[in-house]
Amino acid sequence: MNLEDFKHIISLRVRTFDVDSQGIVHNMNYFKYYEVGRVEYRRNFGYKINKTGVFDDGLKVVVVRNEVDYISYAYLDDILNVHTRISWIKNSSFCFEQLITNQNNGTIISKANGILVNLDNFNRPETLKEKFVNEIKSFENNLIIKKND
Amino acid sequence: MNLEDFKHIISLRVRTFDVDSQGIVHNMNYFKYYEVGRVEYRRNFGYKINKTGVFDDGLKVVVVRNEVDYISYAYLDDILNVHTRISWIKNSSFCFEQLITNQNNGTIISKANGILVNLDNFNRPETLKEKFVNEIKSFENNLIIKKND
Amino acid sequence: MNLEDFKHIISLRVRTFDVDSQGIVHNMNYFKYYEVGRVEYRRNFGYKINKTGVFDDGLKVVVVRNEVDYISYAYLDDILNVHTRISWIKNSSFCFEQLITNQNNGTIISKANGILVNLDNFNRPETLKEKFVNEIKSFENNLIIKKND
Amino acid sequence: MNLEDFKHIISLRVRTFDVDSQGIVHNMNYFKYYEVGRVEYRRNFGYKINKTGVFDDGLKVVVVRNEVDYISYAYLDDILNVHTRISWIKNSSFCFEQLITNQNNGTIISKANGILVNLDNFNRPETLKEKFVNEIKSFENNLIIKKND
Repeated sequence: MNLEDFKHIISLRVRTFDVDSQGIVHNMNYFKYYEVGRVEYRRNFGYKINKTGVFDDGLKVVVVRNEVDYISYAYLDDILNVHTRISWIKNSSFCFEQLITNQNNGTIISKANGILVNLDNFNRPETLKEKFVNEIKSFENNLIIKKND
Repeated sequence: MNLEDFKHIISLRVRTFDVDSQGIVHNMNYFKYYEVGRVEYRRNFGYKINKTGVFDDGLKVVVVRNEVDYISYAYLDDILNVHTRISWIKNSSFCFEQLITNQNNGTIISKANGILVNLDNFNRPETLKEKFVNEIKSFENNLIIKKND
Repeated sequence: MNLEDFKHIISLRVRTFDVDSQGIVHNMNYFKYYEVGRVEYRRNFGYKINKTGVFDDGLKVVVVRNEVDYISYAYLDDILNVHTRISWIKNSSFCFEQLITNQNNGTIISKANGILVNLDNFNRPETLKEKFVNEIKSFENNLIIKKND
Repeated sequence: MNLEDFKHIISLRVRTFDVDSQGIVHNMNYFKYYEVGRVEYRRNFGYKINKTGVFDDGLKVVVVRNEVDYISYAYLDDILNVHTRISWIKNSSFCFEQLITNQNNGTIISKANGILVNLDNFNRPETLKEKFVNEIKSFENNLIIKKND
């Protein structure tokens, strides 16, 4: 992971309901932060998530894998930067590579990879639309196109 | 509120993600506990909540008011008892009266009232079914039947 | 409640993990939004919440009562405005009066009152500092000062 | 992963606040289920988590990595079984291997690995106590002891 590869960044603040009795962000709450980053990444391309959880360009995704490394602590009221990119695309799936840093001092707090699959109306994997693939190709540096699913 | 009025009790344990940096259950998480009590209260009558959030006897409710008093603290790993009753019924709405106690020592931790409205398929208030009203009448002591909504 | 009385407003967006199977914000998640409003209200006076949940001017509060009316629905990706004011102050307690509106169309989504008690280091109620009371007096219109706790 | 390797199982029910607008358990909420499984695994050995999040035998752990595969959907009101084992132990760290199945039909819903590090009072990695290692050795089949951290 290379910080320069990430062109999309949002920031958010650690809230009272995010931290546990050790005073640090509970490990599960990073997934909230990463999910916000993923939705905002798509908004950056002009798409909006509908009430039903489907994007307005028809993209309907489900997360099939999440992996997170917890590297440093985040504390109540910290402002965190969530860095989001798409690192690879396959036929019907793609991978969000993400990083959380402390906005104040740049410390890397956490790293993540999330694999999402595009679904049709019957919730079966469906080939990603060409428009989607082309937009990511144009936006991301070092994007890997994988041939098979 | 009278502890003897409550015939329905469930117990649950305070989890790591329920407590905040002061080491006590975060005020919002009591609503999780109360909601579990409400669903289980209905299960006790033989009803099940469907995937869509509607009960299998057709009851579709929405919460229109919640009020909670926080009386004592609950800590990580405590076992709590959630006491649930219906205190009054109107034409299309009813009130859950609830209490949370520490199972180990009986301390009253919190009290709540939640008002729910029965909805039709167009999300408009709908008169509660006679079967529902009769079941609650038979089950609860000191139930108040209010005439108007 | 009078919309003009509220001088402090923040906005936030409804997230995928905030809505339930009916596609609307789950009743408990409004407490997150209200809590964020309360912390930001204090930040507006120049105070910051510490890692331990205590503010840096020594204010250590605990919520003793929450009441919420759910008036209209909020949906995934809606932007909500959280309006926050202090409506009354007693000796050691005070009340946050709050309102959530849909930023796009002004619809009132929810109303709330939250009563907080100031605590000393032994978690006993403690008289609110004069500086705190004076700041709220200067900032709020229609503030009610109650004599006894 | 082999279902027979798991000797520790708890069950829990999917709640209204666990599912999203697609009617399925939100990906982040699996971490709640896995965390409950981890705490109960330790309780099975006679240990209790203290108010501060430290176990009463002195074990103080922090999660340094989580990985989850989402294999099938879980719906509102489903009862899930959380299967938990420790798959490997290093000097100061160990790995929880976990599985979630639908209790009703046995479908595998999700798989996870979580790596935890034992900390001293200064939050530095500390060699796991011999008692801890021996207990896991006696309890688990196919436990892998890794030499270096």
